[in-house]
Amino acid sequence: MHKFLAKCDEALAEISAQGRYRRFVALEKLVETFPYYRVTMEGKTRDILVWSTNDYLGMGTDPVVIEAAIDAARNYGAGAGGTRNIAGSSPIHVALEEELADLHGKDAALLFTSGYVSNQASLTAILNSLPDWHVFSDAQNHNSMIVGIKGGKQATVHIFKHNDMADLERLLAAAPADAPKLIAFESVYSMDGDIAPLAEICDLADKYNAITYLDEVHAVGMYGPHGGGVSERDGVADRITIIEGTLAKAYGCHGGYITGDFKVLDYIRSVAAGFIFTTALPPPTVAAALASIRTLKADNARRALLFNRAETLKAKFKAAGLPVMPSTSHIVPLMIGNAAKATEVSMRLIREFGMYATPINYPTVPQGTERLRFTPGPKHTDEMMDELVAALCQILQPAEAATA
Amino acid sequence: MHKFLAKCDEALAEISAQGRYRRFVALEKLVETFPYYRVTMEGKTRDILVWSTNDYLGMGTDPVVIEAAIDAARNYGAGAGGTRNIAGSSPIHVALEEELADLHGKDAALLFTSGYVSNQASLTAILNSLPDWHVFSDAQNHNSMIVGIKGGKQATVHIFKHNDMADLERLLAAAPADAPKLIAFESVYSMDGDIAPLAEICDLADKYNAITYLDEVHAVGMYGPHGGGVSERDGVADRITIIEGTLAKAYGCHGGYITGDFKVLDYIRSVAAGFIFTTALPPPTVAAALASIRTLKADNARRALLFNRAETLKAKFKAAGLPVMPSTSHIVPLMIGNAAKATEVSMRLIREFGMYATPINYPTVPQGTERLRFTPGPKHTDEMMDELVAALCQILQPAEAATA
Repeated sequence: MHKFLAKCDEALAEISAQGRYRRFVALEKLVETFPYYRVTMEGKTRDILVWSTNDYLGMGTDPVVIEAAIDAARNYGAGAGGTRNIAGSSPIHVALEEELADLHGKDAALLFTSGYVSNQASLTAILNSLPDWHVFSDAQNHNSMIVGIKGGKQATVHIFKHNDMADLERLLAAAPADAPKLIAFESVYSMDGDIAPLAEICDLADKYNAITYLDEVHAVGMYGPHGGGVSERDGVADRITIIEGTLAKAYGCHGGYITGDFKVLDYIRSVAAGFIFTTALPPPTVAAALASIRTLKADNARRALLFNRAETLKAKFKAAGLPVMPSTSHIVPLMIGNAAKATEVSMRLIREFGMYATPINYPTVPQGTERLRFTPGPKHTDEMMDELVAALCQILQPAEAATA
Repeated sequence: MHKFLAKCDEALAEISAQGRYRRFVALEKLVETFPYYRVTMEGKTRDILVWSTNDYLGMGTDPVVIEAAIDAARNYGAGAGGTRNIAGSSPIHVALEEELADLHGKDAALLFTSGYVSNQASLTAILNSLPDWHVFSDAQNHNSMIVGIKGGKQATVHIFKHNDMADLERLLAAAPADAPKLIAFESVYSMDGDIAPLAEICDLADKYNAITYLDEVHAVGMYGPHGGGVSERDGVADRITIIEGTLAKAYGCHGGYITGDFKVLDYIRSVAAGFIFTTALPPPTVAAALASIRTLKADNARRALLFNRAETLKAKFKAAGLPVMPSTSHIVPLMIGNAAKATEVSMRLIREFGMYATPINYPTVPQGTERLRFTPGPKHTDEMMDELVAALCQILQPAEAATA
């Protein structure tokens, strides 16, 4: 047997022993019943109430968005048929980039096949542009940023404590004054649900002449008066060099992007391998995203409802004594602390109560902090929440619930 | 000004001076008129005959494929709403993976957001599994494989001369006998249009106990009696460890995949960052790809027509004395040899003759080998080809054409 096959066996056995072997539950997301998904398990087909979608606002099932996808499929077909350079740039790709630039108040935008690729390709391209970059990366940055930063062959990487401005300033001050500097961070951290102090980071960037790279994938569409993210809400978008976002979460579609200065984006467009050598996004996705962004620009009621739902669920978890983690965003994580137990709670929820919440384990979160992650949206009612709380109390038996 | 902004200026000026600054032509791919695309240039809107799509068989505009996308949009919405682990695995994702495994006669398949990501994420995952990998990579491998291989932190990389079996064997023989070995190569090389000797590579892999990683992105759907690629045509699919492909070229949709042994794919599924941390492909794309693969499995006539069209264009180019490059595939490259001239020929074709072929320049091909790349499909008629040849003769004035 080839050594690699032996290694696969061994690694899979180890992953299983740690209780973090992932079985994907096949969930049929249905437009008609969302957030109920159809699931077939052990021969039985049921409608399961899903609490863990990243289609936070349900835009992926919105009639306006779906009709845009359908029209584009009819008119332009199923795929782009080429890279942006090889006959794959259509007028709707250009229109979507203009819409995204406008959303963030920037000169230009650049589409990528995913948010993951936008971070990886852009950061690697930037950090290979000069020989002596110093990068300051938040300790909880997403894997796509970490991998993108590692792609910078000669960059010096400094990890600052999560959202810790004193630590960031200490590292900035210690780096060579004339070296090019970049601070990479997120607005909403999706596993804990906390939010970065954007203005303070911008102040430090000004003070130490650093450019800023902000990942807003868990914020665009939801924060700010037009869905421009936390940078719009906090009035600092013009102080961020590059704002990165996704079309696959609150916008309910697929793909990622960056926005910024025309010149910076033209450079990245010209050198980033993960942008150049890949097929452009398919027309139905592009058209759907365009419709979704335009809809959400004007729909503050949907945003308000999202936050109302998240705050309601947090309050209900707290009242029931469930171990809800502190979150200042729309994300409601419940600490479990053990991979096997997180998986077991998730399985009991689905089997016994017809509800689904994803167990989040390593490598997505550190070992020992395994959790369930709830993302209630506009269609999750108070009644659904009460049922969820009752189910979790039965499974987890929190102190308060036990004495109640 | 931040050093990076100065660097952007400088690099863009250099790219422009080399004649390789890319301006994307916005081409509106229209289902109704394909391969004519609508283009607005200098205030005028025209229908342009496109010769450079990677939608080689026109499946992206096929009614069966489009209807599948539309049905999926109506039933499942515009986006998956999550990673494969976070509520993004639907039954159609599973069905598409089963269809792909079947296509290549393998145990299992794994979807990625693109062919680029499938190569990058899979190769990096494999090459970080053991400390002492030796990789043997064809000199003309695609950027996505090169980047994936570079992600293997401790791997020793050997580049063998393009399709040169003697050179490959020399390198294999010189490597430590007990080190794990991987040979990475493509079947159809898309810029030259030549094809690798798959059986010979498999022989060498057997002899030196190497696993094999084959990129069939420019072959799936088109080669082999069911579209299983050159590995199916040559009867060697069962000898390849991993066959990688795309849904974005001959299948006319979007996304990439790998197929192979269940255990190997389960390992990659469990560790590859570019698979784990990204949103699953959108349902309309998945459903369209499924329809496209099933259609092409049974449609040898469409494949035969593709090769008839390619051979006809090659013959017409040759007869006219145009510098067609030797190609044993459906790809018809015309050597120009200079970036500025390739761009100029492409622009004259579109402006004066209403036809489009992409200029291919560095970094996609080496400097000095810039070319135009033609990919005639089932809908490119003899008459269209005659018009193209006449246009190219007028622009390029080949020796034979000048004396005729």
